[in-house]
Amino acid sequence: MSMDVTFLGTGSAYPSPHRGASALVLRTEGECWLFDCGEGTQTQLMKSQLRAGRITKVFISHLHGDHLFGLPGLLCTVSLNTSCDPQQTLNCVDIYGPRVHELEPTSDQSPEEGQLSAEMTAEHGPLHPQEQPGRTISLDVSSDSYLLFEDKKFVVKAFRLFHRIPSFGFCVQEHDRPGRLKTELLKELGLKPGPLYGRLKAGDPVTLESGHVILPSEVLEEAIPGRKVCILGDCSSIVGEGPLMLCSGADLLVHEATLGNEQREKAVDHGHSTPEMAAAVARACCARRLVLYHFSQRYKPCSLQKEGDEDDVSELKRQAEDALQDSGIEVTLAEDFLTLPVPLKR
Amino acid sequence: MSMDVTFLGTGSAYPSPHRGASALVLRTEGECWLFDCGEGTQTQLMKSQLRAGRITKVFISHLHGDHLFGLPGLLCTVSLNTSCDPQQTLNCVDIYGPRVHELEPTSDQSPEEGQLSAEMTAEHGPLHPQEQPGRTISLDVSSDSYLLFEDKKFVVKAFRLFHRIPSFGFCVQEHDRPGRLKTELLKELGLKPGPLYGRLKAGDPVTLESGHVILPSEVLEEAIPGRKVCILGDCSSIVGEGPLMLCSGADLLVHEATLGNEQREKAVDHGHSTPEMAAAVARACCARRLVLYHFSQRYKPCSLQKEGDEDDVSELKRQAEDALQDSGIEVTLAEDFLTLPVPLKR
Ligand SMILES: [Zn+2]
Ligand SMILES: [Zn+2]
Ligand SMILES: [Zn+2]
Ligand SMILES: [Zn+2]
Repeated sequence: MSMDVTFLGTGSAYPSPHRGASALVLRTEGECWLFDCGEGTQTQLMKSQLRAGRITKVFISHLHGDHLFGLPGLLCTVSLNTSCDPQQTLNCVDIYGPRVHELEPTSDQSPEEGQLSAEMTAEHGPLHPQEQPGRTISLDVSSDSYLLFEDKKFVVKAFRLFHRIPSFGFCVQEHDRPGRLKTELLKELGLKPGPLYGRLKAGDPVTLESGHVILPSEVLEEAIPGRKVCILGDCSSIVGEGPLMLCSGADLLVHEATLGNEQREKAVDHGHSTPEMAAAVARACCARRLVLYHFSQRYKPCSLQKEGDEDDVSELKRQAEDALQDSGIEVTLAEDFLTLPVPLKR
Repeated sequence: MSMDVTFLGTGSAYPSPHRGASALVLRTEGECWLFDCGEGTQTQLMKSQLRAGRITKVFISHLHGDHLFGLPGLLCTVSLNTSCDPQQTLNCVDIYGPRVHELEPTSDQSPEEGQLSAEMTAEHGPLHPQEQPGRTISLDVSSDSYLLFEDKKFVVKAFRLFHRIPSFGFCVQEHDRPGRLKTELLKELGLKPGPLYGRLKAGDPVTLESGHVILPSEVLEEAIPGRKVCILGDCSSIVGEGPLMLCSGADLLVHEATLGNEQREKAVDHGHSTPEMAAAVARACCARRLVLYHFSQRYKPCSLQKEGDEDDVSELKRQAEDALQDSGIEVTLAEDFLTLPVPLKR
């Protein structure tokens, strides 16, 4: 199953002609999940290969405008397109984040002035006619995470981050899949291709006419480990044990790097990270690849960088690489419309 | 005084890479007024020559997302830029429209299902710390219009339009200015250049030492008539007498033309106009120039039009021109980033 991540906006604070506001899409066969939705996301989607109508779930990391202000427009447009075409069944878009399917923050995710007031989180007013009620998702203390949902292919959890207001990260974990059947061996055992192959692959033992029992483990190659993609919202640090446990061994760890190492103090003051800080998280959870995004708008995309320009985004990459020397962790700079495949593990 | 109008978005329903959502700026020396603020307006501003920080007033024609969803982001960015620079005094942005400085709609501006519910118009929740309370502006029945404000240079009024939800148009009327002083004549009368010239220009009579009284009308050329720019929100018709009275003789009448004449029924069903309908309004109020905007996203900008493309925006221009034959009214198609000067009248 193919799986990739496309960045629609990699700028912080506000959208600019060079960098959209935060938004990225995780695409698996047929389904698109949107992570954050800054202003202009629907236009960025149109510029990309992706279609807004394919989005089935939206995850909002936190309630800052640069992650959120594109949502009303996106939902209107999706509903406009759907209602124009009566052939199409109305897609319900599930929204996870603060509000809607609400992640209940804890008080250690932000300074006091950043705590969400009761008023901000209260459900006031009746639901929109096309809206379905959300539920409150509380922190599971034992795993220090929030279980958002689980289906046949994935389990998706959230974890806590520290930012000016409560922020969350998301961990998309693909389930392991059974390895290939050893067909040669099965033939030797006298089992011909047919429905019993499927039962073995599904993990059920099979009893032959001879009474001999074949266990799946005997006839299956090694399981194909599920892939893991972790996307962190704005943060100056993680909160609790959850993030490292969940992100352990991530194939892709998407972490903000708003400002360079030399501006660490300013970054932390604003609840943000530097490349070095992002690298420390990637190292602590043994990620395979660290992807930096959410750059200050002062950093132009590489393609527009001119010799002598002061703020060079590739310097951010260098800073993360320096911090990850000998770790084997690859560093990638996200750019608007960059698509990164998440290959199957061997 | 220079005066011009810059279109930031000329598309309807949603922003696309080819046409932004509704927004335009009326610029006079030093001040920018924004009319409507669809999603992406702040990015369109950055692409234009205009600066978001220059905006002192915002006028919202109606509460559809394609005219509104860019406002939260724009206000955040303006306030972000202001608070970063303590040297700069905090600009207060005045917002006129449904809510804030609220234009009270009447029931004949939309079908029943489009009436704003009490809930939508009620002020709920405390003001934002940087927010100042708005006032309710009621229809002045005698002039069938809403007086928004008047200063030394301008009087700005709103008028009612019929749309799926109540919509408004805005009339910006520059005050007439006194004509030039007839300096030759003044010298003949024995009055040398000095403060008395200013008093005459300001409209005050001046008594010479001889006892002779000079009236301003004797020594001033004809007054320079103020310019008038009228910007209509989405509509399928005007409501009442106000619009025609206010827009009479407009230098620039900006009117929507969402769909072509051949789709008149669909346009009206959705509360929109065709070029012919826009032309009829321009003719009824003897405008000098009709500017069409708010085109369905199916109409690409002229520059991207390819031979054989079905929906040709220049056909919309032709339709308006046909309807305005022999009227002397010029028709202009708005495009994103088009700037139209509003020259002084001779
Ligand atoms: Zn942010
Ligand atoms: Zn933030
Ligand atoms: Zn509209
Ligand atoms: Zn509308």
